[in-house]
Amino acid sequence: MDQKTNTQYNPVTADIRRQVGQIVGAAGILEITEAYQQDASKLRYQPEMVVAPQHVHQVQALMRLANQHRFAVTPRGGGSGLAGGCLAVHGGVVLSLRNLEPICRIDSVNLIAEVTPGIITADLKAAACAQGLHYPPDPAGMELSTIGGNAATNAGGPACLKYGTTKDYVLGLESVLPTGELIKTGTRTRKGVVGYDMTQLLVGSEGTLGILTKLFLKLIPLPPAVAGLIAAFENLPQAMRAVTAIMGNGHLPSAIEFMDVKCLDLVQDLLPFPLPQHCACLLIVETDGGPDQVRTEIKSIADVCTRSGAHQLLTADSEPERDKLWKARREVSLRIHDSAAIYVSEDVTVPLGAIADLVSVLPAFEQEYNLRIYAFGHAGDGNIHLNITASDCHQMEQVEQGIAAILRKVLQMQGTISGEHGIGAAKKRYLPMELSPASIRLQKGIKQLFDPNGILNPGKIFP
Amino acid sequence: MDQKTNTQYNPVTADIRRQVGQIVGAAGILEITEAYQQDASKLRYQPEMVVAPQHVHQVQALMRLANQHRFAVTPRGGGSGLAGGCLAVHGGVVLSLRNLEPICRIDSVNLIAEVTPGIITADLKAAACAQGLHYPPDPAGMELSTIGGNAATNAGGPACLKYGTTKDYVLGLESVLPTGELIKTGTRTRKGVVGYDMTQLLVGSEGTLGILTKLFLKLIPLPPAVAGLIAAFENLPQAMRAVTAIMGNGHLPSAIEFMDVKCLDLVQDLLPFPLPQHCACLLIVETDGGPDQVRTEIKSIADVCTRSGAHQLLTADSEPERDKLWKARREVSLRIHDSAAIYVSEDVTVPLGAIADLVSVLPAFEQEYNLRIYAFGHAGDGNIHLNITASDCHQMEQVEQGIAAILRKVLQMQGTISGEHGIGAAKKRYLPMELSPASIRLQKGIKQLFDPNGILNPGKIFP
Repeated sequence: MDQKTNTQYNPVTADIRRQVGQIVGAAGILEITEAYQQDASKLRYQPEMVVAPQHVHQVQALMRLANQHRFAVTPRGGGSGLAGGCLAVHGGVVLSLRNLEPICRIDSVNLIAEVTPGIITADLKAAACAQGLHYPPDPAGMELSTIGGNAATNAGGPACLKYGTTKDYVLGLESVLPTGELIKTGTRTRKGVVGYDMTQLLVGSEGTLGILTKLFLKLIPLPPAVAGLIAAFENLPQAMRAVTAIMGNGHLPSAIEFMDVKCLDLVQDLLPFPLPQHCACLLIVETDGGPDQVRTEIKSIADVCTRSGAHQLLTADSEPERDKLWKARREVSLRIHDSAAIYVSEDVTVPLGAIADLVSVLPAFEQEYNLRIYAFGHAGDGNIHLNITASDCHQMEQVEQGIAAILRKVLQMQGTISGEHGIGAAKKRYLPMELSPASIRLQKGIKQLFDPNGILNPGKIFP
Repeated sequence: MDQKTNTQYNPVTADIRRQVGQIVGAAGILEITEAYQQDASKLRYQPEMVVAPQHVHQVQALMRLANQHRFAVTPRGGGSGLAGGCLAVHGGVVLSLRNLEPICRIDSVNLIAEVTPGIITADLKAAACAQGLHYPPDPAGMELSTIGGNAATNAGGPACLKYGTTKDYVLGLESVLPTGELIKTGTRTRKGVVGYDMTQLLVGSEGTLGILTKLFLKLIPLPPAVAGLIAAFENLPQAMRAVTAIMGNGHLPSAIEFMDVKCLDLVQDLLPFPLPQHCACLLIVETDGGPDQVRTEIKSIADVCTRSGAHQLLTADSEPERDKLWKARREVSLRIHDSAAIYVSEDVTVPLGAIADLVSVLPAFEQEYNLRIYAFGHAGDGNIHLNITASDCHQMEQVEQGIAAILRKVLQMQGTISGEHGIGAAKKRYLPMELSPASIRLQKGIKQLFDPNGILNPGKIFP
């Protein structure tokens, strides 16, 4: 049974609007600006109402009302997602968590952070850093994204390679269930095995099982030093083979990122150095740890890169140079987004040994489907962002065929169709390519159990 | 609705026995020795039949038969658990996974291991190590425990502090559902966000939601060097304050373990050094990484320990000395187990800053409830093993009152009643102390969804 096809969503009538107003107060009702119709994908959906409650009890009351009147509620953080996960696909109320009891408490004795969902990821990282602590997850959108959105989507980033993704830092949650009940999950400790792991079930559920209202996050001591290098390669598969060589030589860098030459062309003005000649790909490698250790390690990694065919090594050691380089890296997808009529961001991940094979076959896909494919991302964990563009907006069907072909290839390579962006509204048609009917049936059963009326973030994940 | 009180489990009749025999073959039927009635807790339950299938399709067929005839099936790995999780509480068939298609494939290009559940944890660690790779989880029972059992219970160990627990290494699973269906979850990659996190739902579910038949595990490069120190303290709270001082000074050791003097007395013959005078507690600290780095770091940690009041520092730097020390540490609970008429192993975890307070109140509990409490374990992550003993076997009621009082104290300190052992049959009466009715209701709903007839590992987790 699919609750989304069975449920009729009711419109947000004047009467409902009045009742919502009584719950959140005048200050809690926001104007339905264009921003609330979109995220960083190219999808758009019009909400009927946008609210930003300040208190958890208001979120609970809103959900009880939504169950009573059967209107859709779509939670939203920073709106920087790439899969349409925070869009009001079935209209109804968009629930911004940005103003919810802002708390960002760094507990330096217990090495945890107690955070409400609307805190911006970069602000949390800075607050931890100010106390000599480190919150490693670093999604590209971290200046815009909220920690609640990061947890809802299990956001990744370059640091995944060494430090894991958001889920590895969420120790416990407070969450409003679709029914309006508040539950606490997990612990404030580094270990805990009491009952099923409800924390990890909520993390990555893309706001379909509960509204995260508080997060307890693991922090670690801040590594005292960082060292980096940039290696230029004349061809992309060669660069990808250097990645496995780095790891195969016993190194675990804090990041191994790459940008192909198409991406580099778009952000050339932002780079802290002139682009080397004949460069098909840059690898950006960083290590963190003690000062001596990172120097030794980066030297050894430089040797591995040279032996693997890098034709030029560059450094970006000063803080401003590093910042500039990372800004360029994070800017890539925005520039691609703005460069073409059709833009689709795919987020495939393959086992490390298959990255070189995957990038080798991209030109054939470009030719067959008349696409332009930009490749960049997290080489160190096999998470390759393929930004697929076409210049003619009537080409969408061909683009979709091309994407399906690429995803089939990725799955043949034992990869996954989404490493960190999630399924949301954008990729749900592809879900059955990766998950079996039995798995989808169980997951829909879990959704039904949490949200009997199917009112929380409907139209997401399941096709 | 609690499926366990509603379901009548049928006995394993001669006819069922014959049909099970047809499924697993004569070689798959084991004698019901005493070993299959127990684990490392003091609980005992008598199974009606013990089978050890060699193929996944046999496991599937067994589950279909169990649904048809409504008999209980209890999966079992190494039988080294401390919570009775693998015991046949409702009789029926014990399903040993020890002989299931033994595979332990280390993929050094993709840095993953493909493993079947019956592989012994220590054997997996050794196989990874032989290829320069590291599987960090190190539960005390790792010479006996299986990787399937570790994943089912989300086993921890000293390495949790730096490296996390078993769940942090399980990328994907193949699992036979209680209905007999086989599902694949997760990925073979380091990232993956397609649908709900069914992998983490199965991990730590103590064999109540599915039978893990294959595991894809994350490996990391093997740290080239390890350095360690042992610090002796004259009182226990002082030692625990040294732990927060170590972390507060920016160190992230690969282990910070402790043993109080009661434990040390029991394993004195196993230590690689004579026990220092006036010693109330030993801290064992290890760091791993590059050779220079670990030397520098352990020196700095030694200074922190001295400043925190350690009255003697010892080293155990050679491989044989280190092995001897860790053997002593792992032997503690067995020696306590054998020392008293009543033995209950509690496994509480508190936030780091609360460890000193927790150990400070133990003498009062000992006096009030006439107990002897041994404290040891993973100081670095707040996971304190409290082994509670009493000399008179008629004292059980008082012991249970004392335990309940300690658990209440732990929860007041924002801790958890189980850090790594799990709930199983031993602790289910305490579950409602930590989890709310809404959380328990959802978890029972998930159990019902996966296992409509309640036949897989009944009588566990839920009171």
